Amino acid sequence: MKEIYNIGLIGFGTIGSGVVKTFNRNLDLMEQKVGTKIKLKKVVDIDIETDRGVFIDKNILSTDVRDILDDPEIDIVIELIGGYEPAKSFILRALSAGKHVVTANKALIAKHWEEIIKTANENKVRICFEASVGGGIPLLEPLNEGLAANRIKAIYGIINGTANYILTKMTDMGCDFDYVLKEAQEKGYAEQDPTFDIEGHDTAQKLIILTILGFGVYIEQDKFHVEGISKIKQADIEFIKNELGYSIKLLAIARIEEGKLEVRVHPTLLPQDHLLASVNDVFNGVYIVGDIVGPVMMYGQGAGMMPTASAVVGDLIDIIENIERPNIYGPEGTDVKKIKDIEEIKSKYYLRIIAIDKPGVLHVISGILSDYNISIESVSQKKKDEGQEVPIFMVTHEAKEKNVRNAVKKIDKLNFVGENTLFIRVLED
Amino acid sequence: MKEIYNIGLIGFGTIGSGVVKTFNRNLDLMEQKVGTKIKLKKVVDIDIETDRGVFIDKNILSTDVRDILDDPEIDIVIELIGGYEPAKSFILRALSAGKHVVTANKALIAKHWEEIIKTANENKVRICFEASVGGGIPLLEPLNEGLAANRIKAIYGIINGTANYILTKMTDMGCDFDYVLKEAQEKGYAEQDPTFDIEGHDTAQKLIILTILGFGVYIEQDKFHVEGISKIKQADIEFIKNELGYSIKLLAIARIEEGKLEVRVHPTLLPQDHLLASVNDVFNGVYIVGDIVGPVMMYGQGAGMMPTASAVVGDLIDIIENIERPNIYGPEGTDVKKIKDIEEIKSKYYLRIIAIDKPGVLHVISGILSDYNISIESVSQKKKDEGQEVPIFMVTHEAKEKNVRNAVKKIDKLNFVGENTLFIRVLED
Repeated sequence: MKEIYNIGLIGFGTIGSGVVKTFNRNLDLMEQKVGTKIKLKKVVDIDIETDRGVFIDKNILSTDVRDILDDPEIDIVIELIGGYEPAKSFILRALSAGKHVVTANKALIAKHWEEIIKTANENKVRICFEASVGGGIPLLEPLNEGLAANRIKAIYGIINGTANYILTKMTDMGCDFDYVLKEAQEKGYAEQDPTFDIEGHDTAQKLIILTILGFGVYIEQDKFHVEGISKIKQADIEFIKNELGYSIKLLAIARIEEGKLEVRVHPTLLPQDHLLASVNDVFNGVYIVGDIVGPVMMYGQGAGMMPTASAVVGDLIDIIENIERPNIYGPEGTDVKKIKDIEEIKSKYYLRIIAIDKPGVLHVISGILSDYNISIESVSQKKKDEGQEVPIFMVTHEAKEKNVRNAVKKIDKLNFVGENTLFIRVLED
Repeated sequence: MKEIYNIGLIGFGTIGSGVVKTFNRNLDLMEQKVGTKIKLKKVVDIDIETDRGVFIDKNILSTDVRDILDDPEIDIVIELIGGYEPAKSFILRALSAGKHVVTANKALIAKHWEEIIKTANENKVRICFEASVGGGIPLLEPLNEGLAANRIKAIYGIINGTANYILTKMTDMGCDFDYVLKEAQEKGYAEQDPTFDIEGHDTAQKLIILTILGFGVYIEQDKFHVEGISKIKQADIEFIKNELGYSIKLLAIARIEEGKLEVRVHPTLLPQDHLLASVNDVFNGVYIVGDIVGPVMMYGQGAGMMPTASAVVGDLIDIIENIERPNIYGPEGTDVKKIKDIEEIKSKYYLRIIAIDKPGVLHVISGILSDYNISIESVSQKKKDEGQEVPIFMVTHEAKEKNVRNAVKKIDKLNFVGENTLFIRVLED
């Protein structure tokens, strides 16, 4: 172990400021933990003028990334600028220069995993990214280390705070999607362009990372089903909560059965007594099932300046404590024989069909479902004036996704059916 | 790293069988993780005849512990016999012989921590005990490693499955303590002598360990307040649930404020939307607040053959991966200036006073509370025939424990007050 480890921080934005704040506050604790000195030697950003409201020695600020990447004294680089470029080039250059890297960049890890891990391994340096999923929640390390005795059977994650906030507020306040989204934007919980969060793309990137660690398999984002929450209406929430006694969550799911791996992101109905149903507001929760341990769950703040900084600095400490350790992420993946297509999965489904209320409607719809071998567990149709559009809510028994999709396609072509039918998968276990 | 690590297992009981089962099932995964061979070389127990329902090579069984402790080829000893002796002697001998040790023995760690850690450090070997708290939940490692950037502010744990099962069933089924205890005993969730679990001693031992890791302080079991759940009646549960909207849990609490550390075990009222309120049945949950990360929670099965084996084998893998790492458990403890006496704490309180229903009773009781500066937030007294004993339920505003104790002492001396008043602390944050 060296007498001092020099750190270079690229990106002095929100998370970067949180890291500097953590150094200011807890450096004594960090150094005691690793038993050596840690020095934040250089902080690089395009903007080094704006006051971040955090104490920093002006002399360590620079706008030139070479002050970190080309400095042979810097041992560990923290990348917090996010996005693909120039973050990717910076990380690859750092790794190639024999520097260990900590990053919170989920997009980059999810997209360029193979190149990044290869470069890190070739240069015998560590790459750590605990902050990329679940913010400050110790998640990747427990999955990778604490549960190392286990073959992972399933991972279910609520890992996007924005989507979870919106669903929670729709449930608690009885407001419609658009209203809650606007409120979330005003509070800063949702971006001005919220697509990335509410359509599940952010969740998908994090799921890619969890799938590497849990199953040893890297799957590209366009290779699995990703579906967001923007089609969910207050009428759905109300029925799901009050009539069915379920909660609705945007879930990242990766699970294996008989060698077949399912990887998917979509809104999901959960029994209200499922622990994930208690993960509300902007909080994240990841529920992991191991073959030895059974279910465990990790919970906490999945984003934000300080929680994310906690994970970044945790990685930094881990690297210094285990500086010669190889990067081992996930099992070899040999348990996975096949990635299941979404059409192959089986599930219970919630259906919301909008149809004109007239005699025979339910008869026709149930006939189509029956033709596709889909049996109905419960159905509910609120009375309105005949001839008006009315929602029909249904829950099916377990059915094949392919059949449900085909049945819904057929139902949506019926002339008395209005807007497209919504179907949401139900998780029972 | 050696080509092969030889393991000796002392104790072939329930957990020991789980460890052997885990070896049988997942040795490939374990070896891949550490990048070297792992061999279960010897299993020692007094009884090597009884069939444990798990495959084991008879040749590695022995009744002589020296076959492990005196074998220079054995690198790591797993101690799973529990209790103080001979477990303590075996562990100390193993450590002194330069062998690393994994144990699930919470009683031993909690009582003899200082001697054990000193012996391990003197011999430059590792001692790991993840399984001693929270069974298979990755808990000590995240607390010690993943959250290493944090000063821990508070730890709240539901860490005894038996007590949690009883409280959950009393709440869900409306049965009285004795009835549920009996059912729990029949199901094997409670021991025939349940004192250790229901009076909080088991929780206290685990809290000692959490306090070492979270705050760097070792506190002996008779130095802090430990109170169980046996005085709680169905009437309490009913009022707490239906009238107050709270849950009741046996909590282990360690938290620091301005350098003063509180360490205590007692039943606690929690708001029903607190995440710990969703930790039900035999499950465990530990809620940790860090100064950087905010709140995180770890959840899972806190006991049982396989969950506990998962933690034991996880420790084994960790040791092989980091065989030269020093034992660093918790911060130096310099943030702790003082251990707070239970009488010094402040809390809201739930009170159940049993008194004869007659005019003036409430006046006298509220007068005593007022004399001790305890103000009442709410009070409820169900009407019965005058002259009969009736419970009076109260919730106070925040008050000093010392005052509450003195007030209750005085109330219990009133001639119209029946059995001793029960007071339960309320956790608001």
